[in-house]
This record gives sequence, C-alpha cells and structure tokens, in this order.
Amino acid sequence: MIKVHHLNESRSQRILWLLEELSLPYEIVQHTRDAKTRLAPPSLTDVHPLGKSPVIQDGALVVIESGAIIDYIIRRHGGGRLAPDAASADYDRYQQWLHYAEGSAMLPLMLNMYVGRLGEAGAPLHPRIQSEIANHLAFVNDSLAGRDYFVGDSLTGADIQMSFVPEVAKAMGKLADYPHMAAWIGRMHARPAWKTALDKGGPYALGA
Amino acid sequence: MIKVHHLNESRSQRILWLLEELSLPYEIVQHTRDAKTRLAPPSLTDVHPLGKSPVIQDGALVVIESGAIIDYIIRRHGGGRLAPDAASADYDRYQQWLHYAEGSAMLPLMLNMYVGRLGEAGAPLHPRIQSEIANHLAFVNDSLAGRDYFVGDSLTGADIQMSFVPEVAKAMGKLADYPHMAAWIGRMHARPAWKTALDKGGPYALGA
Repeated sequence: MIKVHHLNESRSQRILWLLEELSLPYEIVQHTRDAKTRLAPPSLTDVHPLGKSPVIQDGALVVIESGAIIDYIIRRHGGGRLAPDAASADYDRYQQWLHYAEGSAMLPLMLNMYVGRLGEAGAPLHPRIQSEIANHLAFVNDSLAGRDYFVGDSLTGADIQMSFVPEVAKAMGKLADYPHMAAWIGRMHARPAWKTALDKGGPYALGA
Repeated sequence: MIKVHHLNESRSQRILWLLEELSLPYEIVQHTRDAKTRLAPPSLTDVHPLGKSPVIQDGALVVIESGAIIDYIIRRHGGGRLAPDAASADYDRYQQWLHYAEGSAMLPLMLNMYVGRLGEAGAPLHPRIQSEIANHLAFVNDSLAGRDYFVGDSLTGADIQMSFVPEVAKAMGKLADYPHMAAWIGRMHARPAWKTALDKGGPYALGA
C-alpha cells in the first residue's frame, strides 16, 4: 500500500487528490510545519535526505518530486486511467504540463513569496517578478480557453500537477483577470475526489 | 528534422548535448540574449508564447521545458537508448531525476541569482538560500557516490537533465566540497558529444 508523507499546506495535497481520483488504498503519514518558521519538521528527513514533502513510499521504493510521483502512480498503478494513450501527441502534452508546473510556472511565484519577505528592500526585483508571473498566468489561462481540462477531454495527471498554479493565482486575488483558470478551478473543486482529499489532508492556504 | 531554438548560455545547451549523444539530425535556430538585460529576445515568442528557451519543433509539435523535451526526444526518437527499461525501478528513478533538476534543485540556485542582484538588501534571505543550496548539493553529491552515472551503469537523459546542477556548483566554486559531483563532471566533459554540443552551441557561463 502506498504511504504518503503529507505536510500540511503543501504540495502533497495534490498526491492525496490523485489517489482519491484513482480510488487507490493509501496511508497518510502526517507531518506538521513548525508553527513559527513554517518549515517542514525533521521527521521528513527520516524518509528522504532532502526532508521535503511530498514523498511517497511504495514497498522499498521512495519517490520524491510532485511531477515524478504523479507520473509514477499513474504509470504503475493507474491501470490506464488519468493519462492519454502513450502513442498519442496528447501524451507528449501531458508530460509537458507535468514538467512545466514546477519546472517553470512556480519559479516566479516562489520568488514572489521569498522576495516579499524583504519588504521594500526587495522592490528592485518586483517588476521582473510580476511580469514573469503575468507571462505564465496568461499562458496557462490561454491554454484553458475552450477546454475543460489541460489535456484531452477528461481529467489527467496534468490537471492535478498544474493545480497549484491556478490555486496560487486565486490566493493572490488574480482570478478575475484569468476567467478560463477561474472556470477550471470551479470544475476541479466540484469533484468528489477533490473534496475528499481536502477533508483528509486539511485545508491549505497558498500564501503568495 | 527536429529544430532546436537555442539561446546562448541557457538551458538549451542540454538539448544539443542530448541530440549529439543520439546522433540525431537537427537544426539549430540561434537566438541571442539582449547584451544589457540578458533577457531572451522577442524572436522566441514567435515560436511559443512564453518566449523561453529551450523550445523544440518536431513537425507540427512544439515542446517546451527541458525535462519534457529530454523525455520526448528519448521516448519518440531514442530507439531504446539513453533511458532504462520502462519496466525497471531504474526507470522510476530516471523520471525522478528528470523532474527533480528543475522542479526542486534549481530553485535555490535561481533564488541566489535573483536575490544576489539586491546586494546587501537581500541579506536576510541569504542564510535560508545557502542552507537550501547546501541541502540539494549534498543530496546530489551523495547520490553519485560509487556511481558513474545518475541511474544505472550508463549515460541516460537523467545525466543530461541534471547537468546544470553540478555545473552551477562548479561556477560557484563549490566543487571542492562535492568530490563525487566533480568526478562526474570530469567524465561528462570528456564525452565527444559534450564537446561537439559545446562547439555548436557556444560556451556558457552559469553565473550564480
């Protein structure tokens, strides 16, 4: 049975959502952020030297990295669900979204969070960071125009992996500028698996 | 024939290296950074709305994101080379490295580069950034202990995708602290395909 090391208000929420969508049996091991520093607790370094969440254990195998975990669970345990046919061009687009979410889109959002802690001292970086955030959010929003999902006509791991980008846009109060993203979030939040994952993982606030 | 939109001193260097390793025919379209801002030129937005490099075109398909491009080229054109057997646990590790490089390891390195532009004003963030860089470099270095390659006994796309992390450590003058990384870089730089890619793409300095 897959064991998910879950950190409150973190990227591991996506893994719970995925497992609920697949109706796979799993066990949650709860780790809690330090109330003051907001950092992950040392208990996570017992599972993997980086001490980050998400990390899953499946028998002897330990897998880190949201995109790799989603790819792994769907390939090994999905039974053909939640990914396009491997021979199709949609599969290439699916892989691209799996990589793009954390490989590019989250960077300016993380920069914004870190540099925000500097207050006015970070001001010289703000124009560049805001312009990069706008660049990525516009691209994601445009990619959802006329579509219900990121790839094809049904939910895939790409929607799950990408979910933090629209969620952060929402947390930043920017959804009004990105209507396709807003509509997509509405559809995802209406899914029973989303709601169950939120019940099990706890609410999260993606402060940005 | 695959068309690689190559930006000088950028992540697209890895794609040239991959194509040289596979001896695939390809065409380089050269884009040059603005000499003053170091930003990518507008010519890249004609290829993809994000205006970033690397981006490849293969017939009608446009693929962005280093990890996704490496995965794509090897899956569709590798003929079984440069990736572990898909049924093996090494394949899961291979996918993990493809995601980890840009999904996690590069984040503190990019933060260091951006926050470094603030000079002393960025000082409050330095301890956290440096500790995260040390955390990731130690993990990568330890993962290479007793191994010639990131996965299995021969070169895979994981080495190519991960290459920027040891290269940035080198540019930061930190290689002496990470001997397994230093040895790995020595092996990679000795490969004929590495040298040919460097000849074609031009030298790059990963200032951090």
